[in-house]
Amino acid sequence: MDFTIPFETQRMIQVIRDFLRQEVYPLERDFLSTPFRDLLPVLTEKRTRVKTLGLWAPQIPQEYGGQGLSLLEFASIGEELGRTPLGHYLFNCQAPDAGNMELLIQHGTKTQKEAYLMPLIHGQIRSCFSMTEPGYPGSNPAWMSTSAVKDGNDYVINGDKWFSTGADGAAFSIVMAITDPEASNPYRKASMIIVPTSTPGFRHLRNTSVMGDTGSDHASHGEVQFNNCRVPIGNLLGEQGAGFVLAQDRLGPGRIHHCVRWLGICERAFELMCTWASNRLVGPDKLLGSQQIIQTWIAESRAEIDSARLLVLRTAWKIDNLDASAARDDISLIKFSVAAVLQRVIDRAIQTHGGMGMTDNLPLAYWYRHERAARIYDGPDEVHKIAVARHILREYKA
Amino acid sequence: MDFTIPFETQRMIQVIRDFLRQEVYPLERDFLSTPFRDLLPVLTEKRTRVKTLGLWAPQIPQEYGGQGLSLLEFASIGEELGRTPLGHYLFNCQAPDAGNMELLIQHGTKTQKEAYLMPLIHGQIRSCFSMTEPGYPGSNPAWMSTSAVKDGNDYVINGDKWFSTGADGAAFSIVMAITDPEASNPYRKASMIIVPTSTPGFRHLRNTSVMGDTGSDHASHGEVQFNNCRVPIGNLLGEQGAGFVLAQDRLGPGRIHHCVRWLGICERAFELMCTWASNRLVGPDKLLGSQQIIQTWIAESRAEIDSARLLVLRTAWKIDNLDASAARDDISLIKFSVAAVLQRVIDRAIQTHGGMGMTDNLPLAYWYRHERAARIYDGPDEVHKIAVARHILREYKA
Amino acid sequence: MDFTIPFETQRMIQVIRDFLRQEVYPLERDFLSTPFRDLLPVLTEKRTRVKTLGLWAPQIPQEYGGQGLSLLEFASIGEELGRTPLGHYLFNCQAPDAGNMELLIQHGTKTQKEAYLMPLIHGQIRSCFSMTEPGYPGSNPAWMSTSAVKDGNDYVINGDKWFSTGADGAAFSIVMAITDPEASNPYRKASMIIVPTSTPGFRHLRNTSVMGDTGSDHASHGEVQFNNCRVPIGNLLGEQGAGFVLAQDRLGPGRIHHCVRWLGICERAFELMCTWASNRLVGPDKLLGSQQIIQTWIAESRAEIDSARLLVLRTAWKIDNLDASAARDDISLIKFSVAAVLQRVIDRAIQTHGGMGMTDNLPLAYWYRHERAARIYDGPDEVHKIAVARHILREYKA
Amino acid sequence: MDFTIPFETQRMIQVIRDFLRQEVYPLERDFLSTPFRDLLPVLTEKRTRVKTLGLWAPQIPQEYGGQGLSLLEFASIGEELGRTPLGHYLFNCQAPDAGNMELLIQHGTKTQKEAYLMPLIHGQIRSCFSMTEPGYPGSNPAWMSTSAVKDGNDYVINGDKWFSTGADGAAFSIVMAITDPEASNPYRKASMIIVPTSTPGFRHLRNTSVMGDTGSDHASHGEVQFNNCRVPIGNLLGEQGAGFVLAQDRLGPGRIHHCVRWLGICERAFELMCTWASNRLVGPDKLLGSQQIIQTWIAESRAEIDSARLLVLRTAWKIDNLDASAARDDISLIKFSVAAVLQRVIDRAIQTHGGMGMTDNLPLAYWYRHERAARIYDGPDEVHKIAVARHILREYKA
Repeated sequence: MDFTIPFETQRMIQVIRDFLRQEVYPLERDFLSTPFRDLLPVLTEKRTRVKTLGLWAPQIPQEYGGQGLSLLEFASIGEELGRTPLGHYLFNCQAPDAGNMELLIQHGTKTQKEAYLMPLIHGQIRSCFSMTEPGYPGSNPAWMSTSAVKDGNDYVINGDKWFSTGADGAAFSIVMAITDPEASNPYRKASMIIVPTSTPGFRHLRNTSVMGDTGSDHASHGEVQFNNCRVPIGNLLGEQGAGFVLAQDRLGPGRIHHCVRWLGICERAFELMCTWASNRLVGPDKLLGSQQIIQTWIAESRAEIDSARLLVLRTAWKIDNLDASAARDDISLIKFSVAAVLQRVIDRAIQTHGGMGMTDNLPLAYWYRHERAARIYDGPDEVHKIAVARHILREYKA
Repeated sequence: MDFTIPFETQRMIQVIRDFLRQEVYPLERDFLSTPFRDLLPVLTEKRTRVKTLGLWAPQIPQEYGGQGLSLLEFASIGEELGRTPLGHYLFNCQAPDAGNMELLIQHGTKTQKEAYLMPLIHGQIRSCFSMTEPGYPGSNPAWMSTSAVKDGNDYVINGDKWFSTGADGAAFSIVMAITDPEASNPYRKASMIIVPTSTPGFRHLRNTSVMGDTGSDHASHGEVQFNNCRVPIGNLLGEQGAGFVLAQDRLGPGRIHHCVRWLGICERAFELMCTWASNRLVGPDKLLGSQQIIQTWIAESRAEIDSARLLVLRTAWKIDNLDASAARDDISLIKFSVAAVLQRVIDRAIQTHGGMGMTDNLPLAYWYRHERAARIYDGPDEVHKIAVARHILREYKA
Repeated sequence: MDFTIPFETQRMIQVIRDFLRQEVYPLERDFLSTPFRDLLPVLTEKRTRVKTLGLWAPQIPQEYGGQGLSLLEFASIGEELGRTPLGHYLFNCQAPDAGNMELLIQHGTKTQKEAYLMPLIHGQIRSCFSMTEPGYPGSNPAWMSTSAVKDGNDYVINGDKWFSTGADGAAFSIVMAITDPEASNPYRKASMIIVPTSTPGFRHLRNTSVMGDTGSDHASHGEVQFNNCRVPIGNLLGEQGAGFVLAQDRLGPGRIHHCVRWLGICERAFELMCTWASNRLVGPDKLLGSQQIIQTWIAESRAEIDSARLLVLRTAWKIDNLDASAARDDISLIKFSVAAVLQRVIDRAIQTHGGMGMTDNLPLAYWYRHERAARIYDGPDEVHKIAVARHILREYKA
Repeated sequence: MDFTIPFETQRMIQVIRDFLRQEVYPLERDFLSTPFRDLLPVLTEKRTRVKTLGLWAPQIPQEYGGQGLSLLEFASIGEELGRTPLGHYLFNCQAPDAGNMELLIQHGTKTQKEAYLMPLIHGQIRSCFSMTEPGYPGSNPAWMSTSAVKDGNDYVINGDKWFSTGADGAAFSIVMAITDPEASNPYRKASMIIVPTSTPGFRHLRNTSVMGDTGSDHASHGEVQFNNCRVPIGNLLGEQGAGFVLAQDRLGPGRIHHCVRWLGICERAFELMCTWASNRLVGPDKLLGSQQIIQTWIAESRAEIDSARLLVLRTAWKIDNLDASAARDDISLIKFSVAAVLQRVIDRAIQTHGGMGMTDNLPLAYWYRHERAARIYDGPDEVHKIAVARHILREYKA
C-alpha cells in the first residue's frame, strides 16, 4: 500500500493552494453574506482562471477534457479544494454534478454524452440528482414512490423529490424512479432517467430552507415535482431496473469525494483554531493557546484528522488498485468516521474562537451548519455502521 | 430540599402550555423564515393576550407589575416558555431585557426606574446590554477597553462593543465601561452606565451576522460604538466601580433563566424526536422507533434531561432559600452541564429526523445553530469548570 | 417532591461517617491484599460494633430487628456505606443478602422466615441467589434451563448457575428454576425455591475468577450445580410461576441500593482525586491541581455525581410515595446513568493519581475492576435503555 | 509513504500466527490463573520453539542475533504478538528488556554489551529499568531524587524507585539517577547507570500490588531501593548527564512497540467480540450480533482500529525513513490515540460478553485491568497532548 503523492500532483497542489489563498479565500466573506446567484459573475471569472491554470475538472479523464487523476491523486487535490466552501465549485468537481458526470461517463450513450455530459464538463450547464423523497426515508434507498411508466416511446414520470441539490437553475436532473414495481428483487425496481428541466411536467417548486438558508442556484436544495412528465426512452441511463446499482456506483467514489472535502474543512478549521489560539490574548500577557484545554483540543484534532486521512487514502488506494466492491466496507468506515471527526474539529474550532466562532466572519459557522448533514446524506452514519457490522459478523459465524 | 410546585404555579403552567400550543407553535414557521421585525404586529397582539391571561412578566415582583414568582417557581414556567423560540419574548422575560430589569429593580434610582424600568416592564421599549468587546475575550470580564471618563456632570464614553443582543431598535443600553483604571482591584475598575440609544455619539453600526443570520430587532446581535458619547452622571447604575459586582449579580439568576430555557428546548426536541420515531416508517412495516440506536438516544436523552432539571432546581432552591453566593458553584455546574445536555439532545433529535432535521420546517435546526452559543455566552463552559474546580480543590489542601 | 433528610437520619449519617473513617477505612489495605475469609474475625468484631451503635440492618423494618428506614432515607445511608468496599457488609445490607431478606419479608411463609430470614437478619448466616446461567444470557431473564420438577412433596432441581455471589459459605440459595415450562406467558414459567446448601445434589463447584480474583466467602461469585437436588414443596417462595415477578420486585429496590452504593464510591473517588490533586506536586512549586485538565475532570465529576444523586433520590421518593411500578422507568434510567457516571469518575480518579492509581494502595483499582460489572449485572445498561425507550415511544404513537 | 509489507515479513507473520494459535493461546487460561513464575518451565520450552522457528528477537539487528526487522516491519510482527499476553515475552521483545537491549546496542561499551546485552538477547537473563519514583510524578521526568555521587572510581547510588517492571528476578537494572544536580539545563542532570541486582545496597523490596495482582518474575512491578549502592564508573551508560536524552531515545521506538502491541490486543478483543456476537443466542432464535447496539460497537471498533494502525505505520515509516526526531510529535499522537482506542475496544468487547467478559476465562478482563496503565506509562496521555500542541502552536504565531 503506497500513498506517495506523485511529483506532478504535488506541484498541482501547490498551485491550487496559492490560487485559493490569494484569489478565493478573499471571496469567502461575500459568499457568507450574499446569495450565491449574485456571485456568479465573479465565480465565472475564477472558473476561467482555473481553466487557464490547467486545473479544470481534475477528477475527469483526460479524453473528456479533465486532468485524469486517479482517486488517490484526487484525494489530495480534493482535500485542498475543501479548505474553502467555494473550492469544488470553482474546479467543477462539486456535488451533485461530479457524480452525474461519472454516471454519464460510465453509463451514458453517445447521444447522452453529447447532450448532457460534455456541456456539464465544460461548465456550461449544471445538473441535479433527484432521489430522496419527502415521504420516504433516505436510509432505505429501495423504497420510494416516484414512478416512471413506459408509454409508447416515452417514460411518464410522476412523483415528488426533495434535496435535489442545485435544482435551482439546473439544465437537467437524473431522476430515480420505479420502473419495475413487480420485480422480485427490491433492488431491481428503480431506474435512472435523464429529465431536462425544461420538460413539461417538471416543476421546481422551491428551495427548501435548510439551517436558516434558502439558498440559490448551485447552493440550494430543491423540491421538485414530476407531474406526468414525459421523456423519450432514450433518456434511460444504463439498463432499466439498474437504478439502484448505478446509485451504489455513484455513491462509492462520491463518498470518497465527500470525505476528502471534509478533511479539507478539518484542516482549514484546524488552521483557524491554531492561528487564533496562538495570537489571541486572554489577559494582558497570556495567550489563549497557553491554556491546557485548548492544547488538548489541538492535539486531539491533529491525531483525529491524520488518522482519518490515512483511512481515506487506504480506501482510495483500494478502489484504484482493486475495485470499488473490494472497498465497500472501507467506504462505510470512512463515511461515518470522517463525518464524526469533521463535527468534532469544527466544534472545537468554534469553541476556541468564542463569540467570533459564532459569526460569519469566518467559514466555521457555515460548516457547522451545513456540514451537520454529513452524518445524514449518502446514508446516515447509523446505516453504514450496521451494514459494515453485518458483513464482518458473517465471517465469525461458527 | 423541597421541589414541589405550588398548585397555583401548576395551574399557570397548564394555561401557558395550552396557549403556546394553540397560538404560538403555529407561528414558528413564520419565525423561521421571516425577519423578526416583520412579525412585530402579530407578536404584539400575542403579548396583549399574555397580559390578558394574567401571565405577563412572571419573574417580576408584583409591586412592579409582574407575577412575583420565586426562582424555583419560575424554573417551571421558564422551561415551558423555552419550548418555543418565541416563548420568552411573548411573556417579556427574554434576555437581555429580563436581566436589565433585574439590575434596575435592585440597583436603579427612583428616576432610573421611572425612565427605564417601567417602560421596559410594560413592554413599551426594549433594551440591550453592552459588555462584550470584539478585541477582548469574553472569558475575562475584568479586561476591556471601553472607558467612561467623568467630565463635569457627565460621563464621556468611548469604545466598541459587540454581541449587544437586541441593540437594533433598543431604547437604551446598559454599558460596562472602565471608570477607575487605576483601581488596584481589577474587579473594581468598571461601572455600569445607562445610555439611551438616542444619545449623540452612540451608534448602532450593524447587526453581526451569526450562524448565517443577520437578524433584526430583538432577534439580533448588535455592534455598537461609543464615540465621545456623553451621559449625565445620574445614569450611573449602582456605585462607580461596582460594574463587575453588578454583572455577577445579573449573571447568576440569568444563568438559571438560560438553563431552564434550555431544558424547555430539550423537552421540545425530545417530543419532536419521539413523535417522529413513533410514526415515521423506515420500511413498509417498520417504524423508525423500533431501531435500537434510536431507542438508545431516547433513553439517554430522558436520563440526561431529567438529571439536568433536578440540578437546576436544586440551584434555584438554594438561591431562593440561601442566597446566590451560596449557589455560586452550583450555577457554574448547571451552566456547563445543561449546555452539554442541550447540545446532545438537539443533535440526536436532528439525526433522528434525517434530512427533515436539517430543514427549517421544525425549530430543531434553529436551536442547533443559535444555541451553539450556549457553551460560549455568560462565560464559556471551560471558564466555569476551572472556577468551580478551584473552589473545590481549596478545601482539600492539607 | 421533598428530598429533605430527617434530622434523625442526618445524625445517623454522621455517626456512620465517623465510624467508617476511624475504624473501617484503615482495614481497606488488608481487604485489598488478603482473602476475605481471613478477615472474618476482625469483620465480625466490627459488625458487633455496628449493632452496639444501633445501626445494624438499616434497611430492614423495625419489627424484624432493623432500623426501618424509608428508601429515601436509606439512600443517604447507603451512599455513606458505599464509600468503602466493606461498608455494606458490616451493616448487613450487602448484596445478595439484602435482596434475599426483602424477598423473604414480602413473600416468605412464617416457617421460611424463622428458618432463613431471621438468622440472615441477625448476621448468623449468609445466603446466595442463583439466577444467571452460563449458557443463557442474563439480558433475557425469561430464558433459562434449570428446571424444578414436582415429585411428590418435593421439587427436584437440575441445572447449572453461575455468578451466585457469595455462594462460597452460604447457608442457602434462592434458586430461579423453570417449574411451568408449558405456561403460555413466558414470564410465568419460573419459580423461586429456597435450597439449603447442605441439600444433597447441591454442589458449589468453584468460585469463578473475576477480574483476576477468585475471591472467597462473601466476596466471591460461585458456580453451583443442582443435580437431582430435592427440596420440600414448602421451600417454594411465593406462588409457583411467580419467579419472574418476584425477581422484578427484588431488582427494583435492589437497583436503588446499587445506585446509592455507586454514588458512595463516586464520592470517595472524588475525595481521593481532589486530595491528591491538591497536594501532589508535579514540579518543585506546581501542584497537580493547578492543571486545567485535572480541574476539568473535577468540575465534570462534581456535576455528574450531583445530577446522578438527584435522579436517584427522585426515584427513591417515587417508590416511597407512589410505588415501584410507577418508578419502573426511573429505575432503568438510574441503572444505566449512574453506572456510567461511576465508570467515568473512577477512571478520572485513577488517571489523576497516575501510577499510584493503578496500585492497590487505594481502593480505586478495586472499584475500577469489580464495578465494571455495574454496567452488566441486574440487566445490562443496553437492555434498560431499550426498555425505557419502548415505554416512552408508545405514548407518542399517533 | 509506502506501507507495503515485504513478502518475507508476511510469511513470518503467518508462521507466528499459526504458532500462537496452536501453542500459545491454549496457555492463556493458565497464565490468567497461575503465578507467572510457575509457568517458566513451559514458557522456556516455547521460547526454544521460537528460536527453532527462526523468529527469536525479531526487533534486534542480525549482527546481534536477532531478525533485523525495520520498525515498519516489526510493527506487523509486534501486533501479531500482542494478540496474546504471552506473545512478546516468548519472542524476547517484551518491555522493559527490549528497551534496555536497544539502549545497550546504541550506547553500551563493548564490555557492557558482553556482560549485559548478549545474555539478555539470548534470553539467559532478564533486566529492569528504574526510573519512576514514588514521591515524584512520572509526568515530569526531569524531577527526581535518586542520586549517584561519584566517589573514586565508583558511583554511590541512593534512592527509591517503583514500577521497575520485572525487577523480581532481574539480573540488572538500568537506573536513572541525578549525577549533575547543579547543571543549568534540567535535562542534563541525570544519567543512566547499570546496576547488577547482586550489588550490595540494591534491594528489591516488594512487588507492588497492581490491579489486584502482586505478580511475580517478569510479570511484576518492583519497588527497589538503592542504599549506598556502589557500582564502578564503567557502568555508566553513555555520557554522564545524558540520562534524559537516552530516556527519550529509549521511549520513542518503545512507544511504537507499545502501540503495535495495543493494536494486537485490539484485534484479539475484536475477534473475541465478533465471535461471541455471531454465535451467542440472546433468545431461542436471536443472535446477539443481530442487535444494532452491538453492530454499532463492531463498526466503530473496526474504524478506530484501522485508523489507529495507519497512524502507527506512518510513524514507524517516518522513523525508518527520516528519523525519530522528525517523528517526535507523531509518537505523541499515537501514544494517546491508540491508548484511547485500546480502552474503548476492550470495553466494548467486555460489554458484549456480559458476565463472561468479567471472568478470567478470556484475556479481556486481564487487558482491561493491566492496560488501563497504557494511558499512564511512558508519559500520561495528557502530557503528550500538551507537548504536541505546543509544538504545533508555535508555527501559527504571527
